[in-house]
Amino acid sequence: MDDLRLRWGRIQNAMAEAGADGMLLTDSVNLFYACGRVFNGLCYVPAEGEPWFFVRRPGTLTGPRVRHIRKIEELPDAFGALGLPGPQVLLLEADEIPYSEFVRIEAAIGPVRTGNATAAMRRAKMVKTPWEIEQMRISCAKQSEIYNAVPSLYRPGMTDVELQIAIEELMRRRGSIGHFRAFGSNMEMFMGSLLAGDNAAAPSPFDYALGGAGWDPSSPVGASRLPLREGMTVSVDMAGNFTPYMGDMTRTFSVGAVSSIPEAALRAHEVSIAIHGELERIAGPGASCAGLYEMAVLMAREAGLADHFMGTVQQAKFVGHGIGLHINELPVFTPRSKDTLQAGMLFAFEPKFVFEGTGAVGVEDSYLVTETGVERLTNSPREILPLK
Amino acid sequence: MDDLRLRWGRIQNAMAEAGADGMLLTDSVNLFYACGRVFNGLCYVPAEGEPWFFVRRPGTLTGPRVRHIRKIEELPDAFGALGLPGPQVLLLEADEIPYSEFVRIEAAIGPVRTGNATAAMRRAKMVKTPWEIEQMRISCAKQSEIYNAVPSLYRPGMTDVELQIAIEELMRRRGSIGHFRAFGSNMEMFMGSLLAGDNAAAPSPFDYALGGAGWDPSSPVGASRLPLREGMTVSVDMAGNFTPYMGDMTRTFSVGAVSSIPEAALRAHEVSIAIHGELERIAGPGASCAGLYEMAVLMAREAGLADHFMGTVQQAKFVGHGIGLHINELPVFTPRSKDTLQAGMLFAFEPKFVFEGTGAVGVEDSYLVTETGVERLTNSPREILPLK
Repeated sequence: MDDLRLRWGRIQNAMAEAGADGMLLTDSVNLFYACGRVFNGLCYVPAEGEPWFFVRRPGTLTGPRVRHIRKIEELPDAFGALGLPGPQVLLLEADEIPYSEFVRIEAAIGPVRTGNATAAMRRAKMVKTPWEIEQMRISCAKQSEIYNAVPSLYRPGMTDVELQIAIEELMRRRGSIGHFRAFGSNMEMFMGSLLAGDNAAAPSPFDYALGGAGWDPSSPVGASRLPLREGMTVSVDMAGNFTPYMGDMTRTFSVGAVSSIPEAALRAHEVSIAIHGELERIAGPGASCAGLYEMAVLMAREAGLADHFMGTVQQAKFVGHGIGLHINELPVFTPRSKDTLQAGMLFAFEPKFVFEGTGAVGVEDSYLVTETGVERLTNSPREILPLK
Repeated sequence: MDDLRLRWGRIQNAMAEAGADGMLLTDSVNLFYACGRVFNGLCYVPAEGEPWFFVRRPGTLTGPRVRHIRKIEELPDAFGALGLPGPQVLLLEADEIPYSEFVRIEAAIGPVRTGNATAAMRRAKMVKTPWEIEQMRISCAKQSEIYNAVPSLYRPGMTDVELQIAIEELMRRRGSIGHFRAFGSNMEMFMGSLLAGDNAAAPSPFDYALGGAGWDPSSPVGASRLPLREGMTVSVDMAGNFTPYMGDMTRTFSVGAVSSIPEAALRAHEVSIAIHGELERIAGPGASCAGLYEMAVLMAREAGLADHFMGTVQQAKFVGHGIGLHINELPVFTPRSKDTLQAGMLFAFEPKFVFEGTGAVGVEDSYLVTETGVERLTNSPREILPLK
């Protein structure tokens, strides 16, 4: 409850920055942030005081701040019954809810002006509360255990999809909620990505660090039913959704002996680890996200690996991203970012390299920004481990 | 390719009915319908002639009707380069794409009037093409095989979630794509629903036939980590997404001997099968969806089962729904539906009953509307089978 109050305060701060005196949330992730559960309905956050929850379903949900409505058009009466003034400047989730729903809510409430709740909420959610950080610690610890078990799940003759399914099943048995929640239209992915061999270079429609062709044109991303063969790397980047907070982590494995991987790829993997080392040395409150991106690019370039960095055919223009209820929150480590790190932020950092004929190498870890630096939350060994 | 032309024709018919001379699609499911794959970008359907595909990613995607753009604001120039007149009445996916994206596209194109592509596309997709029907046959056949294997996956002492995970893993190994695509905001569900005992009556936020409490407040639907005990029923309603077309199917199992299930529930299961029998006798082109709903309600009422029909605490107000790329397409079998069945429609029919202390019973099958009646596509045995 104290943690909820912290989150309400962050929402209200973001509202104040946007000059708004009311916000209506209806997206699942935002509702969860505002009350700790998903329901069908809306959460109204006033400029001051506690939020109200207008619930359509389930009808059994009750509480002192809960009121039941059947449709959006009942909101004005519900506001009236509570003595709640209609907002002058209302924020609605412009980047998340469909056009027709936005227009319908706007018409029902009739504010003087409407602004973007999505943008405000993404800023509000950027620095995490103690409970959120604890949830992420749990997720990352469980995810690390899964990665430690990957070699035991491998059987010679497997395809990339078969290995991924074995990992999925273990994740589910260890408590994975399953949903892979990404911010942005159409960003569908099923439980994460496992990329082997040349599939690691296959460009995808989506704005992930790496792509993969997938194995069905309705979901063209990730593993592609490629038989795993000696000399390939397997880059395992599965979601860590053991709580609603998703950790992000990548480890690289070799099919067969590590020595079957070309020297250049092995060296690039070491460069990825060295980039993480530099991050851990210099990152902390006040560090520039753009600067940390440039650091990674520079180290890749100095190692002669610019053409392999973050893909080959299609190269991602970021090397890390916030994590939380979505796998891709703020801040983003891009050249254009104006954000600096703040204590309480959670982020994933993923300098990766792709080699034709081999696959992807590199490490991704999830970090917490502390008062003095960063703390790594995902703790499996970083070296390339053999699958055999 | 011939099938694509059929689909383009259906889209253009729906556009003509809406009085539109252009449509821009960007939702994954609509893009897949229009071209057979997902990409990041937009598909422009003119009133006549073939569509154009404006692709952001992947950059490697090429074709005679493909043009690359980086952002929406380049569309007018891209139209100009193709000699394509700007549409007067443009349909955009008002119920699917975020408000900000809708407004941005509208501003870039500047039509005289904008209408709702979502509504038009849902009508266009209602009657399936031969290729779509073939894809659904494949999905339903594989899903039937999975259901036949459920008893072999059960181990005494399992929870509902553990049994669901075993089914998920088998589905994935047999080719399940994984994604559960439902139409409507926030309609998240992970691969389907397995409901045992009193969890079958737990109301959920979502508009599914039955709910379930789930086991995490971030995903309050479906299995709830309930230990499976003798005398409970297990209603397995997992998604059949073995192709992009999702079949829908439910079978009921008893934990322990079938005789441990109360007589009233066993009888209700027979009523569900009898309702299917009546559907198969009277449904076909021209049959009213509202009428088929009323038939099911009437048979439930005559059997004294009105209070158990489609839930107890929260009762669903439909008994079937179209299936396709989404699990919940048109038509919907509700009292208010004005739709009649047409040859080529695909739908799921799911008269179910919930009993306190026992769980849900009933059968769900997927059907094709033929020229003369309906053909069942899911063909596992319908009787309650024991798990032991």
